Amino acid sequence: MTTIKRRKITVVGGGFTGTTTALMAAQKELGDVVLIDIPNNENPTKGKALDMLEASPVQGFDSHIIGTSNYEDTAESDIVVITAGIPRKPGMSRDDLISTNAGIMKSVTKEIVKYSPDCFIIVLTNPVDAMTYTVYKESGFPKNRVIGQSGVLDTARFNTFIARELNVSVEDVQGFVLGGHGDDMVPMLRYSSVGGIPVEKLIEKDRLEQIVERTRKGGGEIVNLLGNGSAYYAPAAAITQMIEAIVKDKKRILPTIAYLEGEYGYSDLYLGVPTILGGSGIEKVFELELTDEEKAALDKSADSVRDVMKAL
Amino acid sequence: MTTIKRRKITVVGGGFTGTTTALMAAQKELGDVVLIDIPNNENPTKGKALDMLEASPVQGFDSHIIGTSNYEDTAESDIVVITAGIPRKPGMSRDDLISTNAGIMKSVTKEIVKYSPDCFIIVLTNPVDAMTYTVYKESGFPKNRVIGQSGVLDTARFNTFIARELNVSVEDVQGFVLGGHGDDMVPMLRYSSVGGIPVEKLIEKDRLEQIVERTRKGGGEIVNLLGNGSAYYAPAAAITQMIEAIVKDKKRILPTIAYLEGEYGYSDLYLGVPTILGGSGIEKVFELELTDEEKAALDKSADSVRDVMKAL
Amino acid sequence: MTTIKRRKITVVGGGFTGTTTALMAAQKELGDVVLIDIPNNENPTKGKALDMLEASPVQGFDSHIIGTSNYEDTAESDIVVITAGIPRKPGMSRDDLISTNAGIMKSVTKEIVKYSPDCFIIVLTNPVDAMTYTVYKESGFPKNRVIGQSGVLDTARFNTFIARELNVSVEDVQGFVLGGHGDDMVPMLRYSSVGGIPVEKLIEKDRLEQIVERTRKGGGEIVNLLGNGSAYYAPAAAITQMIEAIVKDKKRILPTIAYLEGEYGYSDLYLGVPTILGGSGIEKVFELELTDEEKAALDKSADSVRDVMKAL
Amino acid sequence: MTTIKRRKITVVGGGFTGTTTALMAAQKELGDVVLIDIPNNENPTKGKALDMLEASPVQGFDSHIIGTSNYEDTAESDIVVITAGIPRKPGMSRDDLISTNAGIMKSVTKEIVKYSPDCFIIVLTNPVDAMTYTVYKESGFPKNRVIGQSGVLDTARFNTFIARELNVSVEDVQGFVLGGHGDDMVPMLRYSSVGGIPVEKLIEKDRLEQIVERTRKGGGEIVNLLGNGSAYYAPAAAITQMIEAIVKDKKRILPTIAYLEGEYGYSDLYLGVPTILGGSGIEKVFELELTDEEKAALDKSADSVRDVMKAL
Repeated sequence: MTTIKRRKITVVGGGFTGTTTALMAAQKELGDVVLIDIPNNENPTKGKALDMLEASPVQGFDSHIIGTSNYEDTAESDIVVITAGIPRKPGMSRDDLISTNAGIMKSVTKEIVKYSPDCFIIVLTNPVDAMTYTVYKESGFPKNRVIGQSGVLDTARFNTFIARELNVSVEDVQGFVLGGHGDDMVPMLRYSSVGGIPVEKLIEKDRLEQIVERTRKGGGEIVNLLGNGSAYYAPAAAITQMIEAIVKDKKRILPTIAYLEGEYGYSDLYLGVPTILGGSGIEKVFELELTDEEKAALDKSADSVRDVMKAL
Repeated sequence: MTTIKRRKITVVGGGFTGTTTALMAAQKELGDVVLIDIPNNENPTKGKALDMLEASPVQGFDSHIIGTSNYEDTAESDIVVITAGIPRKPGMSRDDLISTNAGIMKSVTKEIVKYSPDCFIIVLTNPVDAMTYTVYKESGFPKNRVIGQSGVLDTARFNTFIARELNVSVEDVQGFVLGGHGDDMVPMLRYSSVGGIPVEKLIEKDRLEQIVERTRKGGGEIVNLLGNGSAYYAPAAAITQMIEAIVKDKKRILPTIAYLEGEYGYSDLYLGVPTILGGSGIEKVFELELTDEEKAALDKSADSVRDVMKAL
Repeated sequence: MTTIKRRKITVVGGGFTGTTTALMAAQKELGDVVLIDIPNNENPTKGKALDMLEASPVQGFDSHIIGTSNYEDTAESDIVVITAGIPRKPGMSRDDLISTNAGIMKSVTKEIVKYSPDCFIIVLTNPVDAMTYTVYKESGFPKNRVIGQSGVLDTARFNTFIARELNVSVEDVQGFVLGGHGDDMVPMLRYSSVGGIPVEKLIEKDRLEQIVERTRKGGGEIVNLLGNGSAYYAPAAAITQMIEAIVKDKKRILPTIAYLEGEYGYSDLYLGVPTILGGSGIEKVFELELTDEEKAALDKSADSVRDVMKAL
Repeated sequence: MTTIKRRKITVVGGGFTGTTTALMAAQKELGDVVLIDIPNNENPTKGKALDMLEASPVQGFDSHIIGTSNYEDTAESDIVVITAGIPRKPGMSRDDLISTNAGIMKSVTKEIVKYSPDCFIIVLTNPVDAMTYTVYKESGFPKNRVIGQSGVLDTARFNTFIARELNVSVEDVQGFVLGGHGDDMVPMLRYSSVGGIPVEKLIEKDRLEQIVERTRKGGGEIVNLLGNGSAYYAPAAAITQMIEAIVKDKKRILPTIAYLEGEYGYSDLYLGVPTILGGSGIEKVFELELTDEEKAALDKSADSVRDVMKAL
């Protein structure tokens, strides 16, 4: 029988980023949402899912949201978002963090692939470049179907700061970043504009550098303010935009963490680059001419990813 | 100079319900949002506000969101939402809870009135009927400008359960409740319909009673699942709908906690009744004919409110 | 390769209703839109499609819209809307109108079926009950995939008049109609409510009868005002709601013109009844108990459809 | 009494652009809409307004829309859009067209100012630069409150063609134009980008020139296709974006026709330039450094405006 089915989105990890992603995806009616966490967290995950579902008559969205710890419930998902993983705890070495999260990626990916062999996977877990690589390898999926998030968030922060600096609409700021997340971010100021006007013509160099620096440390700024925990609203918005680009085949031009095979001179590496994100996942990597300085910064970013990968 | 200014919405209380309300109001561009909490929580509140603001370029909304502990920042708000208050803790008597929250209402209201003498106040703090009354008295505002939330949330839960039971769109379920929150809720099944069809014609009586009972205990269901904390997504959606009704002068027909002066035979009491909510706040209370059974249930609900008020 | 494709919607007929439907469907990003008309109208149809497409960067929707006269361009549509047909001209007999439009239905349906054998068809051409029947027979499609529009529009008009009468939000009015379009409409006042409150408790009987009568003549009221042509905004909104219900599998409860096989005592007839509209098209017909008066009115409506069908 | 009122938008001219603007503004709930035309067209205008209003329950917007020929109904509008005017007819000299439309501008402006002395006026009537100037002089309003539309539409067309050329989302194309409408448009390719990437790096020079040329002739392309009449969807979307920028105080960076007092070396002239559009209307004119070639093109554009103004 001919039937049009809703898209299905699974969010792995019922923490704040995962649940906020579930909410935002449901608000846009991108599909039904399965929020999955470990058995120990099953009830809280069910509780959050139910609470969100109870918002649906008021917000007017027809997306079912369920919480579960059973991967059978994720079967035939179109999109799977991985937010699971542990944050770095006091006394934990960086290598321990990496290997713990890599282990989580592997076991999660096994389950995802088992139940949704045709899905697209978006990875958010840190260190995100290496974790996306891990998921890619474990999944056996083609590269276009495994995608990492970092640039959408970095750009969102940059755009926010620019919009507030100039007191203009956030809709008119177009920032541009390459490379890794946070410190490894390579800001491309000459490609950043406000209503089309190059940002360098609107803001003094020194002030612009401060804004770039604030963007680099954007995650840390939130962590410091919260005192406990890290950002989740903007990260969830970033992931939701990526889900929407794929589910609606929008062919958005977004900075994503993509698998490189020669682009920018790197191979067998996941790195943040400008891409077209559409119904086939990453449909294209834009290869831009870089200045020597930009290339050096991108090299540093790539080195940093490789360092992490060695720890695996 | 002629200028059109954005509306301004203050949310008192930077907990989950307050922050989620801030997000949802901003997403709909209902106005700029000030999220205010006590000085001890100022930094986390600033952090959440900033995180939300950083979602704005991605979600495309031009609403500024700030966190603060300084009421000067709330000056000239159009709407103030009060979510502040403590939950009942183990070992705390009900009367202690009531008097603590009433104290919070009084001090918060003083500040609100000082800086926003023309605003509308929406109260969510529990026990909400008595707390709305407290705010009303303390504010000296006319009754139309002090409004409590409970029925929108109860209805949202009822509608969710009905939509899932029948597997139909949440947009087509129209539940109807009177009276207090939770246990004191008076469901009006004969006024509840699905696509216009009376719900009693679509669902067996026994099953419908189970759904009513589940609705009554809806808050507790979430508390039990979460293990720690209570619902915030659906409550925030409910408040946001009330803000929208006022800010856009939509003249929505919503169940709100309104001040009664003779309606349904009650006076000098805040109780959940069907109202028109628009640009003048509560613009009308609908007085329905009740069956004896319904009137008895509503009396019980009113008694329950009076009991709490005696404790004040 | 795994790819998520946009839905595809074909609108047959490039007149005002067809083009406005194309716009509204595109605004909601329900899919790409093909607007098709006869070769003589190909250029104007292309012009309107291009003009709409040029609105897309401003309104922010990623739906391609093309105009054509070539059915190959409609291939693999998910939804096809038929608005084509001629209006009754001075001196034209009713039977001539019917047979002309039935001829158009047949030739259009042949093409639709040839290129989109799995689509859902929504019919708007008047007289709509008989035209939907004609399309059903010609298509050979199962009954759930051939649907007529009339009740959503009649209800929209009724709801508008009630909302203005009471000065309340249109979101809170729930009208309910059965049977045919316009004069043959069977209003179900006892199932019509405002914020859940029965409309008969809010508006005096005489006034309500005037509103029902105005609804019946709603199409004529617009025709008389325009002087030339007929309504298209509300009809297009109605069709778009039906498209959305199917494309998003929303399972809306909407009055549609559905094929009856015994429901309400009628067989082999398309008639306006309450249905669930979702990803399988008409997923359910609700069979309500009717009063004698309501049943008599519905019989009259059914007779009227049969009369038209005899003319075929 | 404290009351929040809806914004009020008047659209002068009940033709296709005027009515489509009314629809789009209402869909976004930017305010109540008054559609006004001459007494001869009063009934059709009422008919279109009513038809749109009847779409509101289905599309879920609470904006009242009325048609009228009486300027009293426009009283206290926040925004007034002028689409009235005649198109050039065969055999009509250009000067006749200009003087006829200038006469219409004057009489319309008198009425607007009389009933809405604090409003913002957006002018669309062609030749738009000169007509905006006429309205400015006649109104006696400060320059920030009288604004012409042309660049938003030209940019929309350019962005559409670029998005289709590259098969990317319309959300990611940022075109940039200066100067007059159509032939007098000054495209700023070096300020035009796709996802931040300069458009000149993505599309060959020859092809880009074709796209610029197609944009220049964009209005004519639609006119030729339609055979009768001109574009209205994209123009209406453009105006609606400008209304939204003001009503929501969004501070959008949009190319508008602004009154210049020395900027770019011109004085006492309305010309298309990049501006901030917010709650105070035109809040800022951005003055960009131009190349000699760009300056020459802008001079030509300014000359063209002055030529028209001489004809007045």
